[in-house]
Amino acid sequence: MHNLDACLISLLRFVRFASVSAQPQAAKASAQCADWLARHLKRMGMCRVGVTPTKGNPIVTAERIENTGLPTVLIYGHYDVQPPDPLNEWISPPFRPVIRGEHLYGRGASDDKGQLFCHVCAVEMLLSKAAGLPVNVKFLVEGEEEIGSPNLGDFLTQTKEKLSSDVTVVSDNFILGPEQPAITYALRGSLDVQLQVTGQRNDLHSGNFGGTVYNPLRGLCHILSGLQGDGGRISIPGFYDRVEDISEKEREYMRSRGPSDRAMLAQAGARTGSGETGFSLYESTTIRPSVTITGISGGYQGPGPKGVIPARARAKLNFRLVPKQDPAEIDGLFRAYVSSVTPPSLRARVITQKQTRPAITDLNHPAILAAFSAYKGAFGRAPIFLRSGGTIPIVDLLQRSLGMATVLMGFALPDNALHAPNERMHIPTFFKGISTSAHFLSEVGRTVTAHNRSNVAEFISKTQRATAGVLA
Amino acid sequence: MHNLDACLISLLRFVRFASVSAQPQAAKASAQCADWLARHLKRMGMCRVGVTPTKGNPIVTAERIENTGLPTVLIYGHYDVQPPDPLNEWISPPFRPVIRGEHLYGRGASDDKGQLFCHVCAVEMLLSKAAGLPVNVKFLVEGEEEIGSPNLGDFLTQTKEKLSSDVTVVSDNFILGPEQPAITYALRGSLDVQLQVTGQRNDLHSGNFGGTVYNPLRGLCHILSGLQGDGGRISIPGFYDRVEDISEKEREYMRSRGPSDRAMLAQAGARTGSGETGFSLYESTTIRPSVTITGISGGYQGPGPKGVIPARARAKLNFRLVPKQDPAEIDGLFRAYVSSVTPPSLRARVITQKQTRPAITDLNHPAILAAFSAYKGAFGRAPIFLRSGGTIPIVDLLQRSLGMATVLMGFALPDNALHAPNERMHIPTFFKGISTSAHFLSEVGRTVTAHNRSNVAEFISKTQRATAGVLA
Repeated sequence: MHNLDACLISLLRFVRFASVSAQPQAAKASAQCADWLARHLKRMGMCRVGVTPTKGNPIVTAERIENTGLPTVLIYGHYDVQPPDPLNEWISPPFRPVIRGEHLYGRGASDDKGQLFCHVCAVEMLLSKAAGLPVNVKFLVEGEEEIGSPNLGDFLTQTKEKLSSDVTVVSDNFILGPEQPAITYALRGSLDVQLQVTGQRNDLHSGNFGGTVYNPLRGLCHILSGLQGDGGRISIPGFYDRVEDISEKEREYMRSRGPSDRAMLAQAGARTGSGETGFSLYESTTIRPSVTITGISGGYQGPGPKGVIPARARAKLNFRLVPKQDPAEIDGLFRAYVSSVTPPSLRARVITQKQTRPAITDLNHPAILAAFSAYKGAFGRAPIFLRSGGTIPIVDLLQRSLGMATVLMGFALPDNALHAPNERMHIPTFFKGISTSAHFLSEVGRTVTAHNRSNVAEFISKTQRATAGVLA
Repeated sequence: MHNLDACLISLLRFVRFASVSAQPQAAKASAQCADWLARHLKRMGMCRVGVTPTKGNPIVTAERIENTGLPTVLIYGHYDVQPPDPLNEWISPPFRPVIRGEHLYGRGASDDKGQLFCHVCAVEMLLSKAAGLPVNVKFLVEGEEEIGSPNLGDFLTQTKEKLSSDVTVVSDNFILGPEQPAITYALRGSLDVQLQVTGQRNDLHSGNFGGTVYNPLRGLCHILSGLQGDGGRISIPGFYDRVEDISEKEREYMRSRGPSDRAMLAQAGARTGSGETGFSLYESTTIRPSVTITGISGGYQGPGPKGVIPARARAKLNFRLVPKQDPAEIDGLFRAYVSSVTPPSLRARVITQKQTRPAITDLNHPAILAAFSAYKGAFGRAPIFLRSGGTIPIVDLLQRSLGMATVLMGFALPDNALHAPNERMHIPTFFKGISTSAHFLSEVGRTVTAHNRSNVAEFISKTQRATAGVLA
């Protein structure tokens, strides 16, 4: 247990840095955090440790090439954290990490300092043994994930060769519970747009002019309410053209192992579901695309009434896309739809805010099998393969920039309060995470070849076959 | 001119009080303003001058019964004003009234201190003559019109007998220009409601749950976009049941004398109109009801995207109603409509904010004919009879509480910046207003009998006939 205690002490130290990427005044704390991490990696035996400045927070890299004949694992993580607000809801200060019961409390304890440290500690423990590392290892730890990794893309382009590996591991997501590990193999993509509708020049008096002009708010509601038809189907022409059917085998696996409608509704705090006709709620959120109006505003927002015809209205929308759908193409289809339904007296403008492609990992990839064995070994229970409705932009970025498979090996639990007050890491799960990582690195060393130096497109095309293979 | 100069000086004094009813800290200025007005009325010869405290600002009353055999005119006005914000857009301070060119600038110069003073000065000048007043006169001046007259209703109930008269004059609206007087004989009513739509317990992640639940924002858009069909017709069942057709004669008058579509669009700053099919824009805003979404909000409003399914959404709506439509009945029909179209997994709640009945004045009433002659005499040009799309809640309140006809005799011009910075009164029009009021009082003394001691319902029922008579 001595080694595990040391791991916990290091993590406590790591969490003390208030490396909040959203706050410019935290830049110094972020730089100190990066330096501390670099020194830690160096001390434990990593080579070519670098702290590369960017326009924002620095990026920390390190590598240990044990043998050029061995496969190489790139471990991605981020040392930046979400803002700790609201501060008054924290039981102990966010950057004074403490252990209470089975948990370590502090901002970043899970997201992502704690999960990253599962790998850091595993590598450290393997390095301390006479046999050394069973694989080559590279680290890539950025400091701006929580603000959308604005400087990572350029960095990856410049250092593509240096980061070249056989597989990337990202530990920045959930498993199902302390006794139930899971491997997420598919993420939906996303497209964020803003829709602006404008009408007459200025706000007008709704008494003197009510009945004269087409109200932009009415136009906005008209455009938005036409977006989905009965059964939740999205009405944009061409929207489903690239959406593929999933094999019956995979759907059967999802039905038997994935969350039930009842469980999804309980999690959502809703009494009635509203999934796409013909699909379970888990399927509706993973193998089917969705559109959500995330915000809407226009006209008078204060208390009481005001007799006004607003001159403009605005909505924000978030599409979630499934493999083969291209956010840029969907953006074009949405624009065409908006043009076709906007009342002639109004003007609609679409502003694209963010695009992330869907991501999927070939379930036949040896690294997935290695992760499967690793979780089974460390947790004593086989992990469940999950599709996620969410989007992790860095997975898309890493796959596109570096062109290799990404394995999502989460160690956070659903009740760990990520992005919320009293964020915590479950210490027994942290220890199992270290063990999982060590198992994983050994397993990769044993099984991974240059198999996956192909490109992402190929992986996606292989999915159905692969899924069928693993799930059989 | 000596008398007119004195009028202007009195008005300048009256405008100096910062009697902003919306600001609690202005209560003292309002009380001082009421006291000053009461002293002014007393000094000029009015009797039984009273300053009655209310829960808010006091109400000033006065009367001069020359002869119980004469008809009595009740002059309504308000001494409170709108807040002067934004202050930095005023050329001279709002409560330091000054004369520049042909205008007197200051908050309240038109609304309503200046218009009220047309009558105050007319009565003062008539009182200064040997013949005395040609009619009995009562004044009713409140200090909370700009915040919805919250204490006037109770006061009217308590003092109904004391205020009993043959006709009420309200000067709190516009004429068409300095050379074109107008009499407004119909006002639309209004109904303000707030619609709240709620879904699941809390906001949800649009990735993990997009496709699981029925988004309240989508529900809101669905409910609102169904409110109006093609041609602008309102789809609420029963909505038009009490809307009456107007005589072809009146429509012909409106077409020939009222604003053209082109003029309405220029005023609205819009290129294309969107009135009800079969009606001009002037008709759409006066003899036809309308519904306006005045505000909408829900979900994320800040910059950039946020992946959220909001738990609730809200809209505010303003209906404008025509004679015979009852706001309380429309409120019920709207609630029934909302219930019938709300998706089963959402809950919709309607909150009624404000109801004002439509108001119409019998065009055959002798006081209307008196006003017609008075404007013609003072301006040298016959006034145009106008319907207004707007609502003046005190007209409804006065008619319902006191049960007598109300004549709207405006002296403000469209460019007088009411409720805006640099509010002003056109001094030549102010003088014509005084002359109009004096003409009016004399004319009423000559022609008005107990004709209109009937109730409002009767007036409304007589409208078509009456309109046909006057417009013939």
